[in-house]
Amino acid sequence: MSRSIRGWVGGGVAIAGVLAFTLWNVAQPSAVIAADKPADKPVVEFSDDGKMKQPTGYRKWPFVGTPVTPNDMNGGDAPFPEFHIVYMDPDSFVHYEKTGEYRDGTVLVKELTSVGTKEATSGKGYFMGEYIGLEVSMKDAKRFKDEPGNWAYFSFGHKYPLKETATTAATASCNACHQANAKQDYVFTQYYPVLRAAAPKK
Amino acid sequence: MSRSIRGWVGGGVAIAGVLAFTLWNVAQPSAVIAADKPADKPVVEFSDDGKMKQPTGYRKWPFVGTPVTPNDMNGGDAPFPEFHIVYMDPDSFVHYEKTGEYRDGTVLVKELTSVGTKEATSGKGYFMGEYIGLEVSMKDAKRFKDEPGNWAYFSFGHKYPLKETATTAATASCNACHQANAKQDYVFTQYYPVLRAAAPKK
Repeated sequence: MSRSIRGWVGGGVAIAGVLAFTLWNVAQPSAVIAADKPADKPVVEFSDDGKMKQPTGYRKWPFVGTPVTPNDMNGGDAPFPEFHIVYMDPDSFVHYEKTGEYRDGTVLVKELTSVGTKEATSGKGYFMGEYIGLEVSMKDAKRFKDEPGNWAYFSFGHKYPLKETATTAATASCNACHQANAKQDYVFTQYYPVLRAAAPKK
Repeated sequence: MSRSIRGWVGGGVAIAGVLAFTLWNVAQPSAVIAADKPADKPVVEFSDDGKMKQPTGYRKWPFVGTPVTPNDMNGGDAPFPEFHIVYMDPDSFVHYEKTGEYRDGTVLVKELTSVGTKEATSGKGYFMGEYIGLEVSMKDAKRFKDEPGNWAYFSFGHKYPLKETATTAATASCNACHQANAKQDYVFTQYYPVLRAAAPKK
């Protein structure tokens, strides 16, 4: 990440000006600004042949939830091993705070970690180990016009090293399950207390 | 949170200017700026009699890790029920990226949620339910000069409604365990892959 930052930091004063203006616009009700993303840089990028490039900077996006589906509760081979750390891109998070909805362009990152230990001084349970995988979902009415709900899903792998780019997963392999089981617009909001609390009170 | 924001948003242009300057300073290597915190506002506040006020805005701070110590793996009554969502204040996170160390003034928030369900289409496991508690630790060489490592610990409760303020926990009840078992400067860095990855490579 730091390499790409060095690339644009030379124009930092100009960018800071743009950001200042952006901050002024989004300061109400509240916002997170990822300073390592210039205002005009897309949240995720695609190759010329339509593959998603591995996103960067997402570990500073708003966190929305962490389920854990450990291997030892799933026959030794969990479909999503094992902790899922789910983040949402900052601008879409701000939109969600205002509307309670996932705007066109929303990107959710699901980063996977192993279970490191199952007992600590705080009690028995599951504790994060090392990074082992990365998946992304994105809602885009133009790019994914043929996908149900305009949501597409990408896997950069379940072991390191991750793939640099990922193709859109077959509709049946991700979208269908989200469509059938996710409580709100293909997103498992039911497992994300952060988002439920962030949405406007009705 | 939004009420306090409205309080200062009137001076938004001036604040944006300050933030622009701040962004310019912290843009290398990278930073998260919580736009809902004016540059001169402390990360957490204390009452005149030394109690910590319940922090705000932390759900947009960098996420550092989530253990889960569920009640059903701890005799029905976990010491920390059940998911712990741990955040670090943004400026201290940036410092950690540069140095791999917890600077004086570091604030870590541990928000607790219940387990909502133990099975979903993604597999068997533990899925977040509702918010149930909030704890904070802070390193401050002046304020906590008598605490080992200058770390103090605060609990706003393990059920809602949370307490508005919290007194420093007795050294034996939190600090002693962190001192004895945490791998780095009283923090359980060993369970936080985000921080291990964020630290400079040696």
